[in-house]
Amino acid sequence: MKHLFIATLLSASASFAQERLVPYVKPIIGTDRMGHTYPGATVPFGSVQLSPETDTIPYEVDGHYNKDVYKYCAGYQYQDKAIVGFSHTHFSGTGHSDLGDFLIMPTAGKLLLNPGTADHPETGFRSPFSHSTEVAEADYYKVKLEKYNILAELTATTRVGVHQYTFPKSDDAHIVLDAVYGIYNYPDKNVWTYIRVENDTLITGYRQTSGWARTRTVYFAMTLSKPFSSYGFQNGSKKEVYHGFWGKFDQRKNFPEIAGTQIRAYFDFKTEEGEKIKVKFAISPVSTTNALANLRVETPRWNFDEIKNNGQAMWEQELSKIQITADKETKENFYTSMYHAFINPTVYMDGNGAYRGQDQNDYIATTFTNYTTFSLWDTHRALHPLLNIIQPKRNADMVSSMLAHYDQSAEHLLPVWSNSANENWCMIGYHAVSVIADAVIKGNFRVGAERALDACIATARHGSYDGLEYYMKQGYVPEDKNSSSVSKTLEYAYDDWCIAQMAKRLNRKDVYAEFMKRSENYKNVFDASCGYMRPRMSNGTFKTDFDVLNTDEPGFIEGNAWNYSLYVPHDPAGLIALMGGEKRFTAHLDSLFTMQLPDSFFAKTEDITRDGIIGNYVHGNEPSHHLAYLYNWTSTPWKTQERVRMILKKMYRPTPDGLGGNDDCGQMSAWYILSTLGFYPVAPGSDQYSLGSPAMASATLNLENGKTLTITAKNQGDKNVYVQKVVLNGKQLDHNYITHTEIMNGGELVFYMSSKH
Amino acid sequence: MKHLFIATLLSASASFAQERLVPYVKPIIGTDRMGHTYPGATVPFGSVQLSPETDTIPYEVDGHYNKDVYKYCAGYQYQDKAIVGFSHTHFSGTGHSDLGDFLIMPTAGKLLLNPGTADHPETGFRSPFSHSTEVAEADYYKVKLEKYNILAELTATTRVGVHQYTFPKSDDAHIVLDAVYGIYNYPDKNVWTYIRVENDTLITGYRQTSGWARTRTVYFAMTLSKPFSSYGFQNGSKKEVYHGFWGKFDQRKNFPEIAGTQIRAYFDFKTEEGEKIKVKFAISPVSTTNALANLRVETPRWNFDEIKNNGQAMWEQELSKIQITADKETKENFYTSMYHAFINPTVYMDGNGAYRGQDQNDYIATTFTNYTTFSLWDTHRALHPLLNIIQPKRNADMVSSMLAHYDQSAEHLLPVWSNSANENWCMIGYHAVSVIADAVIKGNFRVGAERALDACIATARHGSYDGLEYYMKQGYVPEDKNSSSVSKTLEYAYDDWCIAQMAKRLNRKDVYAEFMKRSENYKNVFDASCGYMRPRMSNGTFKTDFDVLNTDEPGFIEGNAWNYSLYVPHDPAGLIALMGGEKRFTAHLDSLFTMQLPDSFFAKTEDITRDGIIGNYVHGNEPSHHLAYLYNWTSTPWKTQERVRMILKKMYRPTPDGLGGNDDCGQMSAWYILSTLGFYPVAPGSDQYSLGSPAMASATLNLENGKTLTITAKNQGDKNVYVQKVVLNGKQLDHNYITHTEIMNGGELVFYMSSKH
Repeated sequence: MKHLFIATLLSASASFAQERLVPYVKPIIGTDRMGHTYPGATVPFGSVQLSPETDTIPYEVDGHYNKDVYKYCAGYQYQDKAIVGFSHTHFSGTGHSDLGDFLIMPTAGKLLLNPGTADHPETGFRSPFSHSTEVAEADYYKVKLEKYNILAELTATTRVGVHQYTFPKSDDAHIVLDAVYGIYNYPDKNVWTYIRVENDTLITGYRQTSGWARTRTVYFAMTLSKPFSSYGFQNGSKKEVYHGFWGKFDQRKNFPEIAGTQIRAYFDFKTEEGEKIKVKFAISPVSTTNALANLRVETPRWNFDEIKNNGQAMWEQELSKIQITADKETKENFYTSMYHAFINPTVYMDGNGAYRGQDQNDYIATTFTNYTTFSLWDTHRALHPLLNIIQPKRNADMVSSMLAHYDQSAEHLLPVWSNSANENWCMIGYHAVSVIADAVIKGNFRVGAERALDACIATARHGSYDGLEYYMKQGYVPEDKNSSSVSKTLEYAYDDWCIAQMAKRLNRKDVYAEFMKRSENYKNVFDASCGYMRPRMSNGTFKTDFDVLNTDEPGFIEGNAWNYSLYVPHDPAGLIALMGGEKRFTAHLDSLFTMQLPDSFFAKTEDITRDGIIGNYVHGNEPSHHLAYLYNWTSTPWKTQERVRMILKKMYRPTPDGLGGNDDCGQMSAWYILSTLGFYPVAPGSDQYSLGSPAMASATLNLENGKTLTITAKNQGDKNVYVQKVVLNGKQLDHNYITHTEIMNGGELVFYMSSKH
Repeated sequence: MKHLFIATLLSASASFAQERLVPYVKPIIGTDRMGHTYPGATVPFGSVQLSPETDTIPYEVDGHYNKDVYKYCAGYQYQDKAIVGFSHTHFSGTGHSDLGDFLIMPTAGKLLLNPGTADHPETGFRSPFSHSTEVAEADYYKVKLEKYNILAELTATTRVGVHQYTFPKSDDAHIVLDAVYGIYNYPDKNVWTYIRVENDTLITGYRQTSGWARTRTVYFAMTLSKPFSSYGFQNGSKKEVYHGFWGKFDQRKNFPEIAGTQIRAYFDFKTEEGEKIKVKFAISPVSTTNALANLRVETPRWNFDEIKNNGQAMWEQELSKIQITADKETKENFYTSMYHAFINPTVYMDGNGAYRGQDQNDYIATTFTNYTTFSLWDTHRALHPLLNIIQPKRNADMVSSMLAHYDQSAEHLLPVWSNSANENWCMIGYHAVSVIADAVIKGNFRVGAERALDACIATARHGSYDGLEYYMKQGYVPEDKNSSSVSKTLEYAYDDWCIAQMAKRLNRKDVYAEFMKRSENYKNVFDASCGYMRPRMSNGTFKTDFDVLNTDEPGFIEGNAWNYSLYVPHDPAGLIALMGGEKRFTAHLDSLFTMQLPDSFFAKTEDITRDGIIGNYVHGNEPSHHLAYLYNWTSTPWKTQERVRMILKKMYRPTPDGLGGNDDCGQMSAWYILSTLGFYPVAPGSDQYSLGSPAMASATLNLENGKTLTITAKNQGDKNVYVQKVVLNGKQLDHNYITHTEIMNGGELVFYMSSKH
């Protein structure tokens, strides 16, 4: 018995230390309906996201917006029956979209150069597939293309997508390179495509699009493991403007250069049974020369398994930064959340540091890794604070990337939602200041902090931006001057508080005073007569018609008045006072989780289903992400613990339809990770994390500074969600938060759990 | 008397030495009808050609080609009554076109953002003008814009267009920057435009077009001498694909960034009476960063006159390389021809050497100046040979530029007609080999000559190019396999001879043998039964239907069978034999100049008018350019002298309508210059120049090697066109050619002229 016991302990210990975490990653989570994740291959923060597309959805049908397009933000929908091909760029979890660059499809038999339709896949090159042959792992995807009996496998490095296609015997095998396909395929989205066949295994070129990113170009270099026997192009552009080519060459067949707006290429092969043809496809933001250099540096060999193993090792290293003990389902949720949290922002520079700036000029990043894909309205809340803890070096580089954006932008504004050298201005606020303040205050962005503060101040004083002129003059955004005025006023006030915190740290007293004053502006849109934040007009009166439940209500965006009235993350105490004290505040907060919404609520918005909602609390809408933690400012913090656990349970499941809303570039996942660990940054820019209810047995945070924080939840269980006491390094906490310094100093954080509060 | 005589001589001598040549340049020559020249400002071989546009001609009307577009190859037509604005890039003398980038128009009064129409200029921003206020000099253009009472003046450096606008007093003055306008404005020609207002005097951006050059981008940086008070954009693009901007900003007014396909910008000012606002507009093939650097390096100050004077000094230096004594009209023709000959090819790189290659990657030219605008089917005949004599350094750099094109082209072919990193494949042959061979054989391109020969060989053996596969197999291009088969066969044969000459010089005997054999292929399309070069079918028979006068006849391009039958520049003796001896040959040649063509001939072709033709000799069609010199291979060289003088007289006049055809990037002008000097390169690639009849009293060639060649035509006059003898450095020539070495060694070349042959 004794021996056995020791052996078991050793074994458990060994397996804990050595257990591979990659198998817990289920990229398929969130691919059904609302998650807007993709199942394909990517490495942490990689530039390439190589993933299957399951349909070709035009943005418009008969000149009208096609609402089906929303389902295809990440190109893949779990319910679909066919795969159109595999493209190299995808957003993870967004609610608007773009990308889908350079679709590759292997085929056998008669060459088809149109994708076909969902109802009639046989009319084009798309192929039916089954989830039974599908494998989706971190940086690995596999599926059988049933129409052709081709096994498709995908993996990726940071800048190279790698395909391995196992063909049947065929005299008529093809690889189609489709530059027509795109995600959110607006009319005229494809601005220009240029493709060159350099030799019988190397193709280069670029595609310029105008989608969510208005002026965006992706350059590529593509190599084949087997020389093609012939090749050709289909040019669906409206008009070949000058016909000098045609007399001399037939550009459609074996002519090495093509350009236009709608281009497809194909490459022909003869294959033996089971013959593998591999494709390495590198991208660059700058040039085909750099794409080819990326290809040669990152994938010098043709060994698919080696590349896949390297990619999974990269994931293993990132995932192992937090090692948890928990049941399998929790681990799958947790490590898939880690996976989703470590996809964005994405590296946006070549191996040599070259990237395209906001001014469309090319730069070399010498002191930082340049990132893009900043969905800041979402990710400032939990993703960047999480990265500040567990990926501080990357997060500091992200701040540097945002400052480069600021320097290069025509408007001299920090990014709002930026991607690929473009600002798309999606959503509201200037939440880059939250990310920057959080990094500065937590000591993670030191060199250049003054310059960063100046950029924040300039952004916050940019009168022509989105109602700011009125906000600065009147203390709120008047609804008759600018839309979503309540949401903007509240979010500006929070952002201003972030600037004040940074100014305080940097000893800029005048700035601190100015922005602390501005941070109280939330009070200016509170209507005490009804107890809600309410749209206010430029003459000072509140707007008369007013529906507190309507998510599309004028004055608000992605959140109704009921939710947004609780959005003062930087001053919950002030909000409670404003609302008339704890009792009224708690009643409002309680009702949020317990009320029954009318059916009409669900009919209106594409984002929200009954699955993604708890009462009137919509977890898919980020303005509510801090709400469950607000009970910590009342006498009933146990409700925070209870609500957090309920949300964790209800909104995250390890299934294709397991996400309660868009993952939003990792924000939803970061919420899961932090809440599972037992704390959450209600107000990034503060050094405090509000304590919740840890949902695992234990967790070890392996910090970049070499220290380790071990979190233990004693007596934790589905029913034991209430925290009796919290002990940090042997000392019981007398408040319900921990600080960033405490986390980064490492040690032991022990939660004592109970079924009773 | 004696004293007076000496004084006169001294004065004449002094004035000869010091006389400014720039005043003889009349850029207005060729701007009426067919010359396709432009009157605006440019420096020698400059990247910028800043010139007025007199209409906005769409390429299509109701979906059909609009033949009026042909008149506007250079943007300006002398008969027009209004000026639309001033754009920065123009071809000189082409018969197809492109460019017209970035139109600038100053206006006063109500802002109008459409150009208006020729019939109703009052409906848009175009302004009526009068030739009476117009001044067109080398690198200087001035005109009064009558609608606005604005005096417009233009000058340029290599990469910067400089505008000076003298305004009336106005509270409502504007400068319009129009990126919609373009020359040969195909549907969808404007692929993308991006403009940034950096501050109140600096604007940057680029325009990408797909015209004659399929994938072409011009970057710019524009500064204003006076800050604008406000600004805005008009975006005529079909759709703003994502509307994130609109909630936050009104992009139309005082918002610093715009992008789309159809963009106009405007800048508002208040002006005092007589106030000058200046604009410096720099371009780059690579980036706005480089455009701005070009601007700062080339135009560091705001002194318009200084920039103009510098530009005219550049012209003076180039023009003074050949100093002639002649009557005023001849000097105007001659120096305007020099001016037109020194416009193309154009510099295509930034001050730091950066340029865009054929593969759309950016390069730095470290060992040569990179040029573009290679209209080689035209310019290999006389322009490049002229440059080999008088601009050898530039011509060698042009060869280097063509080799860079070869290295970077997807097809691995030397340029055919290349512009701005694009090959448009216009016209036929591979005449780059003629330019390269001429430079190599004349000792002007030494380093890299072997590599150059390899590029020529690879090009000439490129089977998939324009019938070459058949040509190599059957010794001619079969008309049933490829169009313009006779023209191609004849021109390939000449080009092949060029390669053979180069191979001989470089001691590549096998290559010499191969290409000398190919050079005889002209014999394979000669039909002895009718005495003409005639289309031949792949089965060896000649095509049955055959019109020897029709310029559009199948088998031929820009020249009928009558003319093309004389196109064997490299072997006139062989041609004479083939045609049955001198008598029959001379009869054919005579008839060319003396026959009367039927009216139907003129109805067919847009290029040819009765003015541009002598008998059946069409000087505007380059395949005839060597024809008048062919009498030198007969016993009647006096006919060469007579015909050359007739052509000089009839086809070149110092008036707007003074050119007998498209100037074709200087080829027509180079013909004039060489013929006026008394010699012509019948077969570039040979070191011989065939002697004609000098049309000036004397000329001094100031060669780059420091030597001087003085050509004197004793007793020269309108009737004294016949050459009695030619004496080189005291020794009478016993043949009717001189060699390149003789020219470059300098000395005295004396023609003794007479009225009798």
